[in-house]
Amino acid sequence: MWQVAERAGVSQATVSLVLNNVPGSRVADATRTRVLDAVRELGYRTNAFAKSLRSGESGMIGFISDEVASAPFAGDLLKGAQLLAWETGNVILSVDTFREPDLEAAAIDMMLSYRVRGVVYASMYHRMVEVPKGLAGIPTVVVNAQDRSGEVPSVFPDEELGGYTATRHLIEAGHSRIAMINIQDATSDLPAGIGRLAGYRRALVEAGIAAPSELVRYGTGTVEDGLEITTDLLRGTEHPTAIFCGNDRTAWGAYRALEAAGLSVPDDCSIVGFDNHAMVAPYLDPGLTTIELPYERMARKAVELLLSNDLERPRKNPVECSLIHRGSVAKAKVPA
Amino acid sequence: MWQVAERAGVSQATVSLVLNNVPGSRVADATRTRVLDAVRELGYRTNAFAKSLRSGESGMIGFISDEVASAPFAGDLLKGAQLLAWETGNVILSVDTFREPDLEAAAIDMMLSYRVRGVVYASMYHRMVEVPKGLAGIPTVVVNAQDRSGEVPSVFPDEELGGYTATRHLIEAGHSRIAMINIQDATSDLPAGIGRLAGYRRALVEAGIAAPSELVRYGTGTVEDGLEITTDLLRGTEHPTAIFCGNDRTAWGAYRALEAAGLSVPDDCSIVGFDNHAMVAPYLDPGLTTIELPYERMARKAVELLLSNDLERPRKNPVECSLIHRGSVAKAKVPA
Repeated sequence: MWQVAERAGVSQATVSLVLNNVPGSRVADATRTRVLDAVRELGYRTNAFAKSLRSGESGMIGFISDEVASAPFAGDLLKGAQLLAWETGNVILSVDTFREPDLEAAAIDMMLSYRVRGVVYASMYHRMVEVPKGLAGIPTVVVNAQDRSGEVPSVFPDEELGGYTATRHLIEAGHSRIAMINIQDATSDLPAGIGRLAGYRRALVEAGIAAPSELVRYGTGTVEDGLEITTDLLRGTEHPTAIFCGNDRTAWGAYRALEAAGLSVPDDCSIVGFDNHAMVAPYLDPGLTTIELPYERMARKAVELLLSNDLERPRKNPVECSLIHRGSVAKAKVPA
Repeated sequence: MWQVAERAGVSQATVSLVLNNVPGSRVADATRTRVLDAVRELGYRTNAFAKSLRSGESGMIGFISDEVASAPFAGDLLKGAQLLAWETGNVILSVDTFREPDLEAAAIDMMLSYRVRGVVYASMYHRMVEVPKGLAGIPTVVVNAQDRSGEVPSVFPDEELGGYTATRHLIEAGHSRIAMINIQDATSDLPAGIGRLAGYRRALVEAGIAAPSELVRYGTGTVEDGLEITTDLLRGTEHPTAIFCGNDRTAWGAYRALEAAGLSVPDDCSIVGFDNHAMVAPYLDPGLTTIELPYERMARKAVELLLSNDLERPRKNPVECSLIHRGSVAKAKVPA
């Protein structure tokens, strides 16, 4: 433990507070993060996990999701939940319910029969959810989604700040004709598209830049839509010099459209994506500058809230999405 | 149940045999598949799951893996295991151990304390594994890997047949100058690369086509390697008219190299990949013809073997990898 304390630059008492998650203890988030990072780096975790698993005292935390465990997108949610569960002497019992209400109700019954300490209710993508009534009597935290009633603590990506960060990055590179291709239409209630667009608008307003409506387009988040919409954006005489794409797949389509038009990323048009999809963003040519969805951090935060025994848990817990720099943004050309 | 029977074209007794996995019953694999497909289509499953979960009689099956639950590649392994577990009245208790032996030993102790009926021991990618000694006393099936000792039943992709199928497809399109870019070097003992290459060679030998050594190349399965090696293959005066890439990422690199050389897929060069990676293969332009890794089927098979109580379980259970047709293979041009 002293090694962890030394590495994190805190006292052993603080390390103990963080690792045992003592109720009522006040440890700043930044400190907590430093301690947990140090733990991870030192492999101290391994021994702690092994000890708590062997002790026979490990509790169970339920992880109910629509399709997280088997989806290729949000696996880090389960990873984050599992890591923090272990650090606190618990194991995860995970069930995918494929959004079938009967299955969900049965999964809850099953988890209650195994006396889980609480349930993380997770979604494959950020949406508004109705938390099942069966969970009323047991600590529950929603992750990668928001409880529609506003009653159940929810941990979700700060989409608005993510959209703002992406757009701000393009503005700072000197761009002023910046399009956005959203991943849903204007009538959809999905928080991802609403938030990312709101962040885009805020950044432009703040910088005193107009966002003519022809620069705000709506797709469905597929490669095909990114391709079609970008092709259309390039038709005008004054095409955008930068595009904020609502997700990485849309950005992939934008790359393709630019290439087909004989234009290059980032010299003729800068691109920022969203998701930091592990199988897409690093492999586009050039690598895609994008906003990372903080799956692992969200899940850790959710388990932390679940175990905190704090009745005053904040109901809304947006988690910051970071900018990942690669090669798809260049300084805007100054007109001759 | 009669709906399932009707749809699958079998008797209700057969449906019952398949769903209850009656020991000693002889149901042909094809029949079993038809029944299970019908069950799935009809949503009969949902009710069955719900009933068994609610009954309080659900057993637990352990799922120990290096990193399957949180990896973006093999999520369907967990999905397949979960589906068959539910169909048979069980739930999955899943733990990722990140290949740390201490954690693995502790996870096994924990699972034994929860009295799991058996353990599926899974790997994120196909490799030879040492099954931990702690599992000696409990039914265990290895999936997406092979037990090095040969003692523990193992379910894994039929890599050789996959490589054969891929190459055969190119031969049938009229190609005779077919390169292969493998995903590991000649000294590696990973079954994926060894098997895929062996299948490639068998298809060529069978068709009486020579495979000059300059057409067999070794990379590491990355986009970058696919790009570099394909660039090099194009240097010769008589470059290959088709390339079998050991995985989809390598194929992505091959696309890039061809594009950079002003050549088009499939008109100037046909490509077949391997993996059918959901985020890559359909989105390449044109869509990539590739071999699918049968994650879900392998996991179902593993759980089926685990629950069969059959001491004569076959030790080696290769599962066929199917060819997925998209747009990257064209008929070879006949020389003028």
